[in-house]
Amino acid sequence: MIDHVGVGHDAVRRANLSRVLRRLHADGPATRADLTVSSGLNRSTIGALVTDLASRQLVTEGEARATGAPGRPSPTVSVRTDRCVVLALDIGVDSIAAATFVLGGSRRRLLRIDRPRGRTPIDTTVEDLGALADDLLGDLTRRHRLLGIGVSVVGLVRTTDGLVHAAPNLGWQDAPLAGLLRARLRRRVPIQIANDADAGVLAERVRGAGRGVDDLVYVSGEVGVGGGVIVGGRPLRGTGGYAGEIGHMSVDAAGLPCVCGAVGCWETRIGESALLRLAGEPEDGGREAVDRVLAAADAGDEGALGALEELGRWLSIGLGALVNIFDPELVILGRLHARLHPYVSHHAEEHLATRTLVGRRSAVRVVPAELDDSCLVGAAELAFEPILADPTSVRPARVAVSA
Amino acid sequence: MIDHVGVGHDAVRRANLSRVLRRLHADGPATRADLTVSSGLNRSTIGALVTDLASRQLVTEGEARATGAPGRPSPTVSVRTDRCVVLALDIGVDSIAAATFVLGGSRRRLLRIDRPRGRTPIDTTVEDLGALADDLLGDLTRRHRLLGIGVSVVGLVRTTDGLVHAAPNLGWQDAPLAGLLRARLRRRVPIQIANDADAGVLAERVRGAGRGVDDLVYVSGEVGVGGGVIVGGRPLRGTGGYAGEIGHMSVDAAGLPCVCGAVGCWETRIGESALLRLAGEPEDGGREAVDRVLAAADAGDEGALGALEELGRWLSIGLGALVNIFDPELVILGRLHARLHPYVSHHAEEHLATRTLVGRRSAVRVVPAELDDSCLVGAAELAFEPILADPTSVRPARVAVSA
Repeated sequence: MIDHVGVGHDAVRRANLSRVLRRLHADGPATRADLTVSSGLNRSTIGALVTDLASRQLVTEGEARATGAPGRPSPTVSVRTDRCVVLALDIGVDSIAAATFVLGGSRRRLLRIDRPRGRTPIDTTVEDLGALADDLLGDLTRRHRLLGIGVSVVGLVRTTDGLVHAAPNLGWQDAPLAGLLRARLRRRVPIQIANDADAGVLAERVRGAGRGVDDLVYVSGEVGVGGGVIVGGRPLRGTGGYAGEIGHMSVDAAGLPCVCGAVGCWETRIGESALLRLAGEPEDGGREAVDRVLAAADAGDEGALGALEELGRWLSIGLGALVNIFDPELVILGRLHARLHPYVSHHAEEHLATRTLVGRRSAVRVVPAELDDSCLVGAAELAFEPILADPTSVRPARVAVSA
Repeated sequence: MIDHVGVGHDAVRRANLSRVLRRLHADGPATRADLTVSSGLNRSTIGALVTDLASRQLVTEGEARATGAPGRPSPTVSVRTDRCVVLALDIGVDSIAAATFVLGGSRRRLLRIDRPRGRTPIDTTVEDLGALADDLLGDLTRRHRLLGIGVSVVGLVRTTDGLVHAAPNLGWQDAPLAGLLRARLRRRVPIQIANDADAGVLAERVRGAGRGVDDLVYVSGEVGVGGGVIVGGRPLRGTGGYAGEIGHMSVDAAGLPCVCGAVGCWETRIGESALLRLAGEPEDGGREAVDRVLAAADAGDEGALGALEELGRWLSIGLGALVNIFDPELVILGRLHARLHPYVSHHAEEHLATRTLVGRRSAVRVVPAELDDSCLVGAAELAFEPILADPTSVRPARVAVSA
């Protein structure tokens, strides 16, 4: 729908609180003077906004700092790291993890359990995550307030209600993950669930290789190949929240059958199995087999180098389609493809610059992801999102009354 | 960049004026009471906004109308159709056209000239469009104010400055279209230039098959195959404004060479040449040859029906990729593909519902475009856009002073 809803003054205040808090959360401390300049608001409005955020224990002001510039010294505003906490959960193909993060994005504590690949009942997964969460949350002080839970999962997620429609690598189908986690964790806070690539692109944009980039495509492969896309500064969601399944774009209509039921999907050419098949390893060899292929390539093995070159060719073809479709400033390769980046990026950048209609006019860089734990960082950012979007959802602290 | 800029009160007023005017422009007359309900603003704010828009001669209020509901009768607010005019220009493969449109989207007058296909010097095109524009603008009354010019062109356009980077069907390369038109038309109003598919999707969303749809993909073919995409209610632009070149997604990496320099582009399988080749017609047979193929299919000719089925199969494969990428609510087929819709839509909808990861979960409809002249209508909407986005850019009328 075209948005015909008017803007009232409460909405303006919320929007301005949101912008100030988002700036401090993403970019770190700033003086009131910095905030005045970057927001375009006047000094007294910034003062009122900072006071409001401080009353909600979201930010704190330090000593005024003389900047050397004329005028009054301006106090430094920072997010408070001793109050608001979120819980981030990551359900991957061969591990699960949980961590607590504070405002500003610092990780407090991380727990990870490696698991064998294959079908894992959802009840076991929820119970294991619950045990990790109990440990982490038991460790918080009484001053801490848990404000949200974010979850990254290797599957197709309906973001509206946290149903995992399909997670073939876990053996899940139509799994009500949000409900099960809510019942196990028993915390009255919002739970946000997202596909691992959507979490990954969010993390890379806020804290990684995609900082400040408004149009980017993130390709994240492991067993399957997923994608997260930012268009005009906003995550691509689609009408049901399923957008970004770039691994299932057909690049080779006469090609190989895909696990999704179609033929010639990009995933069949650039996923882990494709690499192992090209290199003569067993397709289900997993991480160890990938390590062997990369070690062989580094030692100059022609078979391994040839496999990487062929994978790079297919990577380029699919990236070409995505560049023609999205005209992004940046392509980020995540996880498996971050490891492959040194072997394939030259071919990909050349292909994009010479063999695509759009890339010839609009230069695009191909870079590896910067974050090791982008799914977990992205899950934390998902959990922060409701607070960042509307800081007034956090109630002001009661003032302590002494007897 | 993450948008950290704050919202001031002037910006709020502009945003609210914009929303009211956009509503009236897109959906037609409304009572003040309707506007109050749909905007969520209060009655006195709506009153002030309507008065402001009226002072700029953008809207007019009719007699108060008793609605049958309790309370005061509410006056009806409409856009004024006797003042603000835009000029829309369309540069197609085998015709050029110009038309004037008034606020609310009604067309005042249209002039079209058919031209043979092939290379046409840009100077001739600009001169011909200039002659059409002189005729149309000479016909306006003294009360009319020309507020903007919008142009749709079959080529790759850098939207920031109106440079046509490439229009292979016209033989243009790096053509400074905006500058040449500005020099010829000599009007001090903004000129907006867009690719024909971007203009088409805008038209279909505001006035055609895509009304009220926030996530839609528009496929528009003729000689080439272009696309326009709306994501989350906003046009997909990309970092250089070139996004949406869906005709150049590779669907068939071992396939046919494409005019763009790549191999296996979707355009080579679903464009006009592909249809004619499949049907045994000369590939450059143009519109008449397409007419013959469709007439033969209607008469039950197996060759023609087989050609349409094969094209439908390729259409489905590419749409499958786009559905997996965008998770749209709607796919609109425009121009050549609107004509093909009756022959191919059944196959496409079935393919999307059964052979795509996303379409199996998120139903997508495939419909033909509704507008005959979507490029021209879209060009008009482009020209209206600056006024709709900021009605305060139109100065209030001077009050006539009698001696």
